[in-house]
Amino acid sequence: MDISAVNALPYEDFVNMFGNVVERCPIVAAAVWSRRPFENFKAVETAIHEFIDELPESGKEGILRCHPDLAGRDLHSGTLTRESQEEQARAGMHALTSAEASRLAQLNRDYKERFGFPFVICARMSDKETILLRLTERSQHEPHVERSRGIEEVKKICHLRLQGLLRTDAANKL
Amino acid sequence: MDISAVNALPYEDFVNMFGNVVERCPIVAAAVWSRRPFENFKAVETAIHEFIDELPESGKEGILRCHPDLAGRDLHSGTLTRESQEEQARAGMHALTSAEASRLAQLNRDYKERFGFPFVICARMSDKETILLRLTERSQHEPHVERSRGIEEVKKICHLRLQGLLRTDAANKL
Repeated sequence: MDISAVNALPYEDFVNMFGNVVERCPIVAAAVWSRRPFENFKAVETAIHEFIDELPESGKEGILRCHPDLAGRDLHSGTLTRESQEEQARAGMHALTSAEASRLAQLNRDYKERFGFPFVICARMSDKETILLRLTERSQHEPHVERSRGIEEVKKICHLRLQGLLRTDAANKL
Repeated sequence: MDISAVNALPYEDFVNMFGNVVERCPIVAAAVWSRRPFENFKAVETAIHEFIDELPESGKEGILRCHPDLAGRDLHSGTLTRESQEEQARAGMHALTSAEASRLAQLNRDYKERFGFPFVICARMSDKETILLRLTERSQHEPHVERSRGIEEVKKICHLRLQGLLRTDAANKL
């Protein structure tokens, strides 16, 4: 699909296609549709970033709270979105030892207790050892630092999901 | 459930409970959780209104675009949210004559073509005759007027969904 085809999509098809590039936040794609026509795929991504950056701090926290825990109850109950399911599987979240699973669950609980939102990391760029390390490190951050860091990870996840959707020569320009 | 119980909810439970008071926009509930503790249920609603009102215009259009068409393809394919399903059924959207269904589909198409978002109306406060009348009238509005009008309807829908969730003496104060 090239950018002129994307620009021609009615909002319903655009939201169906891009509605989960930010996890469980179809409002983001639904909002950036207003910015058509896009010059290229990078412009779609830029519009998404700008929409997120203009949200009040509570809205950024809201985006983070729409993300599931890594190796959390949604993974175990099969209620992850398709995208999260694939990403968590690639990062080895399905194949934790019992000790790793316990440690991750405890770290997730502590993190959420401290910050009021879940630990978000671009799992496809990581593996279980790195995830445990980053979670331990990032738990020490100040809340406003960690909110920004979480949003950076949301943007990395979004980037890879956009690339996955577009999978064309044009998408390589992202 | 009283307001102290609501204030004690972890964000995950809060989002599970209130995540669809604005259709397919769990980010709204996820964001207003930051505003705890709430003095009463009215304060929850006020926080939701303030979050919506502070969104850029594209974000308000984004909220409207997360709503399904009345008697549209989601109704026919059974993919409406539970809340929308009930609301559309109460407004008689399941029981249109063939002529009414054709007329509504054409009006919905024209409306979306003109405004770039769907016709949103609080169906539970309406019936099929009124819906057809309002849709015809509102199609004549200027786009910015109609965007505001759609958001007013989103807030009415939200109000009734909140009342439905709370169904306690306290909720009657909403």
